[in-house]
Amino acid sequence: MTVTDVYTIETAAPDDTSGLERLVERGEVDPSNVVCVLGKTEGNGCVNDFSRGLATTAYEHLFADYLDVSPDDVGDEVALIMSGGTEGVLTPHVTVFVRREDDPATDGKRLSVARAATRAFDPEELGRDPQIRATAEAFERATERAAVDPGDVHYVQVKCPLLTADRIADARARGETVATDETYESMAYSRGASALGVALATGELDESAVGTDVVCADPSVYSSVASTSAGSELRRSEVLLVGNSDRAGGDLVADHAVMADALDGAAVEDAAGVSLPGERDRVAAVFAKAQASSDGTIRGRRHVIHDDSDINATRHARSVVGSVVGARLGDPMVYVSGGAEHQGPDGGGPVAVVREVE
Amino acid sequence: MTVTDVYTIETAAPDDTSGLERLVERGEVDPSNVVCVLGKTEGNGCVNDFSRGLATTAYEHLFADYLDVSPDDVGDEVALIMSGGTEGVLTPHVTVFVRREDDPATDGKRLSVARAATRAFDPEELGRDPQIRATAEAFERATERAAVDPGDVHYVQVKCPLLTADRIADARARGETVATDETYESMAYSRGASALGVALATGELDESAVGTDVVCADPSVYSSVASTSAGSELRRSEVLLVGNSDRAGGDLVADHAVMADALDGAAVEDAAGVSLPGERDRVAAVFAKAQASSDGTIRGRRHVIHDDSDINATRHARSVVGSVVGARLGDPMVYVSGGAEHQGPDGGGPVAVVREVE
Amino acid sequence: MTVTDVYTIETAAPDDTSGLERLVERGEVDPSNVVCVLGKTEGNGCVNDFSRGLATTAYEHLFADYLDVSPDDVGDEVALIMSGGTEGVLTPHVTVFVRREDDPATDGKRLSVARAATRAFDPEELGRDPQIRATAEAFERATERAAVDPGDVHYVQVKCPLLTADRIADARARGETVATDETYESMAYSRGASALGVALATGELDESAVGTDVVCADPSVYSSVASTSAGSELRRSEVLLVGNSDRAGGDLVADHAVMADALDGAAVEDAAGVSLPGERDRVAAVFAKAQASSDGTIRGRRHVIHDDSDINATRHARSVVGSVVGARLGDPMVYVSGGAEHQGPDGGGPVAVVREVE
Amino acid sequence: MTVTDVYTIETAAPDDTSGLERLVERGEVDPSNVVCVLGKTEGNGCVNDFSRGLATTAYEHLFADYLDVSPDDVGDEVALIMSGGTEGVLTPHVTVFVRREDDPATDGKRLSVARAATRAFDPEELGRDPQIRATAEAFERATERAAVDPGDVHYVQVKCPLLTADRIADARARGETVATDETYESMAYSRGASALGVALATGELDESAVGTDVVCADPSVYSSVASTSAGSELRRSEVLLVGNSDRAGGDLVADHAVMADALDGAAVEDAAGVSLPGERDRVAAVFAKAQASSDGTIRGRRHVIHDDSDINATRHARSVVGSVVGARLGDPMVYVSGGAEHQGPDGGGPVAVVREVE
Repeated sequence: MTVTDVYTIETAAPDDTSGLERLVERGEVDPSNVVCVLGKTEGNGCVNDFSRGLATTAYEHLFADYLDVSPDDVGDEVALIMSGGTEGVLTPHVTVFVRREDDPATDGKRLSVARAATRAFDPEELGRDPQIRATAEAFERATERAAVDPGDVHYVQVKCPLLTADRIADARARGETVATDETYESMAYSRGASALGVALATGELDESAVGTDVVCADPSVYSSVASTSAGSELRRSEVLLVGNSDRAGGDLVADHAVMADALDGAAVEDAAGVSLPGERDRVAAVFAKAQASSDGTIRGRRHVIHDDSDINATRHARSVVGSVVGARLGDPMVYVSGGAEHQGPDGGGPVAVVREVE
Repeated sequence: MTVTDVYTIETAAPDDTSGLERLVERGEVDPSNVVCVLGKTEGNGCVNDFSRGLATTAYEHLFADYLDVSPDDVGDEVALIMSGGTEGVLTPHVTVFVRREDDPATDGKRLSVARAATRAFDPEELGRDPQIRATAEAFERATERAAVDPGDVHYVQVKCPLLTADRIADARARGETVATDETYESMAYSRGASALGVALATGELDESAVGTDVVCADPSVYSSVASTSAGSELRRSEVLLVGNSDRAGGDLVADHAVMADALDGAAVEDAAGVSLPGERDRVAAVFAKAQASSDGTIRGRRHVIHDDSDINATRHARSVVGSVVGARLGDPMVYVSGGAEHQGPDGGGPVAVVREVE
Repeated sequence: MTVTDVYTIETAAPDDTSGLERLVERGEVDPSNVVCVLGKTEGNGCVNDFSRGLATTAYEHLFADYLDVSPDDVGDEVALIMSGGTEGVLTPHVTVFVRREDDPATDGKRLSVARAATRAFDPEELGRDPQIRATAEAFERATERAAVDPGDVHYVQVKCPLLTADRIADARARGETVATDETYESMAYSRGASALGVALATGELDESAVGTDVVCADPSVYSSVASTSAGSELRRSEVLLVGNSDRAGGDLVADHAVMADALDGAAVEDAAGVSLPGERDRVAAVFAKAQASSDGTIRGRRHVIHDDSDINATRHARSVVGSVVGARLGDPMVYVSGGAEHQGPDGGGPVAVVREVE
Repeated sequence: MTVTDVYTIETAAPDDTSGLERLVERGEVDPSNVVCVLGKTEGNGCVNDFSRGLATTAYEHLFADYLDVSPDDVGDEVALIMSGGTEGVLTPHVTVFVRREDDPATDGKRLSVARAATRAFDPEELGRDPQIRATAEAFERATERAAVDPGDVHYVQVKCPLLTADRIADARARGETVATDETYESMAYSRGASALGVALATGELDESAVGTDVVCADPSVYSSVASTSAGSELRRSEVLLVGNSDRAGGDLVADHAVMADALDGAAVEDAAGVSLPGERDRVAAVFAKAQASSDGTIRGRRHVIHDDSDINATRHARSVVGSVVGARLGDPMVYVSGGAEHQGPDGGGPVAVVREVE
């Protein structure tokens, strides 16, 4: 039976791979079993965040050694998904998903993960229908690999490209238009299209509800399990699917809930299914999305996130959700990704937990 | 008997005085009874935060009309204390303290507030002994006015000056040195000296424990009731003392607790003495301090606040504490002030609550 | 004959009005003759720049005293136009335009200025046709007052509103759409529509070339004399027209040139018509616009301004143009305003100079 | 005879090594002859600038392939010096210094470069005497290798470590103090100590004039040829010495001048010894330092760089000097490094040029 192990490892820098190296040296992790390294790196989480590229490069070289492939081909073997931004007290860390094949059977569904990648996108495809469709197709390949039914999917991490000044110029040189001229804003479009692709594939939304014109236009249309993140170092999207499967063993399961707004700490406990912070030790990993409400209010009060021209809205939002989840969990080492376009309701977002079964 | 009313009013902009104006128009507040307007304005909370000055100017002109004095003399009548920075979900607002004289007697101690100001400081005095001593003296005048015993003080707000490039040049032109050449850092020195002044006056620390050499040097030395905030628009310090007095009436009381670190939401409930968020309606105001731990860790995890050269540490810290307190209270309209030098333990800070008695 | 005096005065803070006060005290300036105070204040020049509001408030109260009107009515008497952002070495300052009526006649055209204001705009009008038309109408009223022919206009400063989160919500509550959901981006739309209004009124562009669909869409369409700047403190637009008139006297004249890109220092000397920095004393004021080229290159080289998520593009651009103009002039006290949408060619912008005639 | 070639190559991203790869593929550059890659990368140039590490990693792997050594050992073969910050219009680029041994003799001195590294520093040594001495020793080794007399040194680039939160904690755990608790400020101390080391080694200053107590304390003490830059990815300092030698051939020479302040574009022409921008093609590379004047003024005017809590002073300064040098040269691809502590006079800094001889 397949077993998925989850290791959440604090990092001392974006290119600190020593935690995983120690697990390999001790024989706990066989590098060829690693499905994904999902990192929370300490850059600004926006366009010019080079901490993501630095982390990706470090893990590419590490796995090139482990797997005896070239660094450029590591991406075919392991999903390296780095999400920038550890504002406030968020701890820079990586979560390593390892899929082993040799454990005894268990009763009930257990954690199962799988990955898939889209083809490389042209700049003019980002934030639009081609990105939505290609993401949905990658999702489907991942569910087959993970042997997870659509109803048992609890978390779908997508790392997707964004538009940089260079890429916009490239599209224009070929006579194409792009979804937006603003590089920072393109992150939102790419995240939004990715989330709609997930919602289409899970069945949360049907064909008629998604498309270019919905992206970043109608916040009432969303997925409750998608978590998408954009990075300039990518040309294609990486999909990591997390769910429960009756063909998986081990002692971990996944679950999710939806934070109604950024202060909704109770949703963390709902997703965890255990009492927090008391039973914190049974929680292997927490994944949350963050986004400032578009109407500039929360609990009926004004916030000024959208009027702040010094700090981008995603940075504010990550800090808030990281603080709320960290306080509830009693531990700031949680994965919070900013920009929840079409990921949960406006101002809120999905929160997923991997925990030990009783 | 003296009664203190507390109004917490959301603002639409730093110079939005309309909430107080409506209270005056409706006859609920007599402007001549206002002791203090304590504002949380929406600037960066750092050196070049002009939202504080804009708010102060607006209230100066409002009270100049109400009290028939010149705007320059309003400060002698009402303490206008503006603290910048509403990062994350913090709601821009003002808290208005009103002291009336005509209510019936009550059993037990009730909320009492009073204010006092120091003399104007020379730049070379900031962050040093003269500022400590002058703050302690202002505190003592305030306790007398409020009829509050030192043991019944729960919150002491000090708004103090900082060093700007101009003021540093002025000191140097006179052959004087200053505590620091960095304007942003001078805010820390001024806040720290103010807090030590409070600790000296409350008796939390004795004479031998405070002095120029301790300021921003020994974080283990602190007050549990001081909340200090620096602003470039000031030359002198404003002190607002909040405590309970057996010579006060009404139905409000103050209490305080100490957050052990920025994620310590339980301290808010301790200070409130009520169940949160259920009994949120009994809470009139919450005042908290925020500061990133100096060793770069929280709950044993690394945070990167001190390595972030794009966002100042005080901005990160306010966002975290605002989120944690807001989530616990169920309302983001709380007063969180950044920079807790000598205000509570390293990485934590005092939290004070004004609430209705049962 | 009408004579226009121009005073460029360094300020020590946004609300420092002391320079003008001294001129009034010495009898050099009669406050009732002041047409405009054009300020360069030291905020971030973006959405949450409260230095503009602070400066405006200070001058409103000063002129309320001088002219014996209420602060709210000062705007009918004097144009108070504050532009934020003094990045790099730019000197915070105000330029005061004073129009006197009693001097002897001179040969040739001389400097003449006049102002006009539009009506207050609804949020949904900003960045669109109604703003274009209303700006053109205000321009026309100003040319009549200044007795300046369209061909003799060298500089048209427009201070215009922007969209804040509140205003966007207000429009939506009334079922209206707005030009953009992003508050920072709305500054661009408002500046762009204002500039197109000027171009329409000067005859640089004809009716068919301007309209909602051109705003921020076609950078090849522009005015060479418009300088527009957005501020959250405004509901209507203020227009200040600067040109030469044969019905004006004195010893000042205006001229302008167009910077082809941000490094085009030679255009400053062209506009000045004198040798710089040698004849710097003959220059009374310099006004320039700044904007990063939209294709991410300058002189064929890549710049990263549009990829910087920590510092907004307008801040970078002001710093560059301020440095280039300041180095050419030998003095950093120049007015540089960011965001040159439809003001000069892409990446460049108009530069206007007021100087003494020989 | 030894010949030094200098290639200045635009980069599309911090890890873009394609320009050098093309030179190698075409046979123009033999990788084993490369002495130094001096990069200007597009991060914030401050503590959390990961563009430097990303660039260094990319070149380490490239040279590991070229030279058949491990990436960790590349630093022994080639100096990889990355300086972050391309604010304003500065072009991200690398300058590659190549030292060949086979060319014919020439009359007169010609460009010669050499490198040396210090030992790794402990955190408590940074910004203090041990760093000064070790830098001077590395300088001396470099002059010997380059066969350059002290009087013929025109540029000394030092890339030095800084204090991060981790390193400060490490020093404290061992009972040591550090020069400053502020990570951003530690960059200044490290740059300053490095520059004093250079000044000591060139003979610009004598033993009695340098030491721990002078670092960042007395701006009147400086080197006119030092250019120092701090980066968190380093533990030791890298020194690159650029001068003219009568034992070198080729057609390049170096020269330098001192910018008296940030607007002193004339110094660029002085250093170049050619007419600019007309003879721009004869200039192979320009290296300048930038720092805001400590008294908050330039040309007698106030600047607000030190009061800006949103953008660090070094970022403002790089933008200004990059704009002034770029406008003078007619090309923004110049190397401008921020933080000129003890490098040129207060507010100014050295500028060095490599150009073709006539």
